[in-house]
Amino acid sequence: MPNYRELESRFRRIAVLEGAEAVLHWDAATMMPKGGAQVRAEQIAGLKGLRHELLNHPALADLLSAAEAERAALDPWQRANLREMRRRWRHATALPADLVEASSKAASACEMAWREARPANDFAGLAPRLAEVVRLARERAAAKAAALDLSAYDALLDQYEPGLRQTAVDAVFGELMAFLPDLLGQAIARQRSLPAPLPLPGPFPLAIQRKLAERLMAALGFDFEYGRLDVSHHPFTGGVPDDVRLTTRYAEADFAGALMGTLHETGHALYERGLPVRWRHQPVGEAMGMAMHESQSLIVEMQACRSDAFIGFLAPLLAESFGGAAQAWAPANLARHYRRVARSPIRVDADEVSYPLHIVLRYRLERRLIDGSLTVAELPGAWADLMRELVGVVPPDDRDGCLQDIHWMGGDLGYFPTYTLGAIAAAQLFAAAQAAVPGLAAALARGDFRPLVGWLAQNVHVQGSLHESADALLVAVTGRPLDVAAFRGHLVERYLA
Amino acid sequence: MPNYRELESRFRRIAVLEGAEAVLHWDAATMMPKGGAQVRAEQIAGLKGLRHELLNHPALADLLSAAEAERAALDPWQRANLREMRRRWRHATALPADLVEASSKAASACEMAWREARPANDFAGLAPRLAEVVRLARERAAAKAAALDLSAYDALLDQYEPGLRQTAVDAVFGELMAFLPDLLGQAIARQRSLPAPLPLPGPFPLAIQRKLAERLMAALGFDFEYGRLDVSHHPFTGGVPDDVRLTTRYAEADFAGALMGTLHETGHALYERGLPVRWRHQPVGEAMGMAMHESQSLIVEMQACRSDAFIGFLAPLLAESFGGAAQAWAPANLARHYRRVARSPIRVDADEVSYPLHIVLRYRLERRLIDGSLTVAELPGAWADLMRELVGVVPPDDRDGCLQDIHWMGGDLGYFPTYTLGAIAAAQLFAAAQAAVPGLAAALARGDFRPLVGWLAQNVHVQGSLHESADALLVAVTGRPLDVAAFRGHLVERYLA
Repeated sequence: MPNYRELESRFRRIAVLEGAEAVLHWDAATMMPKGGAQVRAEQIAGLKGLRHELLNHPALADLLSAAEAERAALDPWQRANLREMRRRWRHATALPADLVEASSKAASACEMAWREARPANDFAGLAPRLAEVVRLARERAAAKAAALDLSAYDALLDQYEPGLRQTAVDAVFGELMAFLPDLLGQAIARQRSLPAPLPLPGPFPLAIQRKLAERLMAALGFDFEYGRLDVSHHPFTGGVPDDVRLTTRYAEADFAGALMGTLHETGHALYERGLPVRWRHQPVGEAMGMAMHESQSLIVEMQACRSDAFIGFLAPLLAESFGGAAQAWAPANLARHYRRVARSPIRVDADEVSYPLHIVLRYRLERRLIDGSLTVAELPGAWADLMRELVGVVPPDDRDGCLQDIHWMGGDLGYFPTYTLGAIAAAQLFAAAQAAVPGLAAALARGDFRPLVGWLAQNVHVQGSLHESADALLVAVTGRPLDVAAFRGHLVERYLA
Repeated sequence: MPNYRELESRFRRIAVLEGAEAVLHWDAATMMPKGGAQVRAEQIAGLKGLRHELLNHPALADLLSAAEAERAALDPWQRANLREMRRRWRHATALPADLVEASSKAASACEMAWREARPANDFAGLAPRLAEVVRLARERAAAKAAALDLSAYDALLDQYEPGLRQTAVDAVFGELMAFLPDLLGQAIARQRSLPAPLPLPGPFPLAIQRKLAERLMAALGFDFEYGRLDVSHHPFTGGVPDDVRLTTRYAEADFAGALMGTLHETGHALYERGLPVRWRHQPVGEAMGMAMHESQSLIVEMQACRSDAFIGFLAPLLAESFGGAAQAWAPANLARHYRRVARSPIRVDADEVSYPLHIVLRYRLERRLIDGSLTVAELPGAWADLMRELVGVVPPDDRDGCLQDIHWMGGDLGYFPTYTLGAIAAAQLFAAAQAAVPGLAAALARGDFRPLVGWLAQNVHVQGSLHESADALLVAVTGRPLDVAAFRGHLVERYLA
């Protein structure tokens, strides 16, 4: 299989460059002084350009065809690898190199400008840069749509989630919208009928928060020989599987954000660490799309760590770490904090009930940005209107309105839906894990994540991209494609029971 | 001048990749968890390989010839840029790509192994890796020697110092050896006749050391918007001119090492920051060789910061920072500490009198490693013998013998001589600065580096590689090529007067 072998070698080279880029991106968000922004943007754009050239190398088309002709000689992993190579090649060859480089530079410039524009609540100042990013995203979408025979928005979706189409998102979001607004109202009403939670005794020293976060990461099985935890403005998981770089952000007045944020990112990190070692630097060795990635973080953060079982373990640990009145640290009080439902204008502060409504808002708006029926100048107004309609709250300003997220600034349109698909998958997988692993909840009550993480490692992490879509993986693991039922059941049980 | 313009664009791309590599290298030394070493080595080797391919692109030979034919239309900076492009092209095309990639991987592996082998005093365990690094260095030297019509060792020297040849090093080191061993003996004898310095009142808390280092960096004119100071095992200055990454290492028992080390690295950093902005990412915009680079660090560390004038400013600052008995912080006592001469086996701990002897040792040994008359297995014995002969001390073990330096581990043979050429140039430039700038010493006595750094910025930093060699730059600035006289005069005045 010389053609297939040659492809492996070429894709390995591309993946190694992508890893280098990931480290530079992490550094820009955590370590880089401000003055380095311009040259860093050029470094990242340069690497992206080179990757694009390697993927667009004229020999690759022939190699892919020749390897596909030898397909019968390949094992299932190799066949899946070849399938993913073809998919990437299709996406990459759809775009001219100058569009890739221009997009990367515009995104870096817009992200850096956004870091100042958001605290200054300066949408007008940012708008020209964002308009350029959106213009380039539309150009990319149009080019990919033509090459992949998809609609423009489907072409964007497919980048983050192989095989995902707008029709599927519409169906799932339609199901959600049929019950979620009512469920949110009922959860808030029920919450109002119960006593308010006792305040937690802060402030919470940052050094203790950090130690606690690291302790819980270790309990989850994160190995600090293969990664780090640092601070960035917008938490993320970056780096490469053998050197995972997690970030969080601490606030003295509130430990919950950093703690749950770190647990969330650790879910992502465990997925990266657990990807099949045999397939490092090959497309099939990577995660099965962004929805499945998000499912891994949400299983840890939402399904496991906000469960009664785990809160019972966490409560005395928090009391010991931060001190203060024992009543406040009672599990029942802590649960009331961790499961507080509210109509908030901020996505990253949203509870798991209202969160999907924030996603539906972004989904509706970004589709219009791509089809051209909404301009960047109209975004603040459209955002505020839709926020009132869907979440039932009006953002006080653009800072906490359409300036709140980094995604569009970086050119990531078509990404947001994966958050909610991930939340749904998380519920479905957690239900399957509980059914398959006796004593899983009892282990969580002892702070022991091994049964859960072991099941995920075996059923999800080590599968890489062997399956051709997240749905196919879900069928293999749970017997069904993505299904809202478990998510709905989870919300009803946790918030209305 | 379309050919020249096209060359600028291609060399810009190469330089941007090199900058990305520099950040990855800094991260490996400061931030990276141990488990990331293997993939990082692959990332760096991958980038080096790509740079090598870009420099070896078939079109480049024609572009260079065509641009050289249009030379008359170029201004002096463009002509110098073209000259440097040709030089780099000659070096790069001398090497096959697989040798470049193999060298990079072997160097990364050896450096990582050395980090464990040195504290374990395990030369035997490291030897196979080092032998491989040396074998590949000899292969590179032979390939470059053939292509550049130089001797093997000259071909290595020329990489770090354009135009430097073994005959020139022999002449300068011959001059040094004619007086330095005697001067060292006299300085030690004179020191013995004076009272021993009072001990400085430690321990020295790391946080205070760090604050002090940052304060002095700022006084030197380092702008933290364009760089950082961190900790690494082996201090260095990395990154890129608009994002300079300095490292140091602190010890609670001794503040002097970290402090003087930081001042040294700041000298390097100011050179990088001061390179001509108009020529960023072009060969002519880079530093004029490694000897000139070292001269900039040593002017700050040795010439300025160990002068009576500056010690007078530093003494009360140290007293205020660390407290304790006032007598110990008297300038005269501090000067005795900072100018202590000793026969030490460790290069990085050596005073400026004995330091060149450590370099002569490495110069003699690395020439034999390259010509094959010394094997890696014979290195420990040869090192100990020569250390006794030149410095007059026997290393207690390999850890503080031939395992002490990272340079050879990383494949950098032919680099060591530039340290001492830099020390000589530093004395020559400092003398010229003092002659040209009235009140320079008086300013140092106030902790004001502006007259000195301003003169260096104008006469050295902003010149980039406009001149064709360090000697040509020295002629332009001081009226003479490299000349041992000022260095000898400096040592005599400071250590024997």
